[in-house]
Amino acid sequence: MHRSRFSTLLIDVPQDQVPAATTFWSSAFGVPATPVPGEEQFTGLRGAFPGLVTALQSIDDAPRYHLDFETDDLDAETARLIALGAVEVGRWLDCRTLRAPGGHLLCVIPVHSDPEEFQRLATVWE
Amino acid sequence: MHRSRFSTLLIDVPQDQVPAATTFWSSAFGVPATPVPGEEQFTGLRGAFPGLVTALQSIDDAPRYHLDFETDDLDAETARLIALGAVEVGRWLDCRTLRAPGGHLLCVIPVHSDPEEFQRLATVWE
Repeated sequence: MHRSRFSTLLIDVPQDQVPAATTFWSSAFGVPATPVPGEEQFTGLRGAFPGLVTALQSIDDAPRYHLDFETDDLDAETARLIALGAVEVGRWLDCRTLRAPGGHLLCVIPVHSDPEEFQRLATVWE
Repeated sequence: MHRSRFSTLLIDVPQDQVPAATTFWSSAFGVPATPVPGEEQFTGLRGAFPGLVTALQSIDDAPRYHLDFETDDLDAETARLIALGAVEVGRWLDCRTLRAPGGHLLCVIPVHSDPEEFQRLATVWE
């Protein structure tokens, strides 16, 4: 038994366009853009949507959005999504990057939202 | 004065991969996949995230995610985002498609979530 939830929306931006994109998305959502201490590639956009962690990520690739699923068991959640047809395409620290049927990227990450919120909102997979 | 809010996450899927993607995302989120009456290109994924309208859209293009901003004034909201640096790249019915600085697609659409929720959560732009 493990738990997971769709928790996070990432706006992945080519590195040289991060300043312009940060200004745009902060103003578009009407929320502050906040650097994430110790993870300088991320800029938080807290409040973009109630309860949904939303952040810009500087990447060395074409612009894209991707979703994160947070979980209390990385291996079990990755295995669940692979059994549903996803393919693992990369790992970075504790993040597993998968490509879904249809072509979309999603990542499996450790729980990073409020633990009580995670317990309340996550789905239990038997 | 007008109001808007980020309301919707679209998973845009190449037409021939819609069945596989629908099965995957419904199971990944643990929610039912529901056809949208009268808009057969959409499949709702109600409950994927609390309060966030989430749907698959069949498209004739490469896979992508995009975001929708709902508003009570399409012209004013489109003008606001263009003033922030977005570029309008298409129109379809009441939907205005914009490309943000950094390259991401977002659409401006009429209010489609619960009107009380819209009033409660939307930002007022003076």
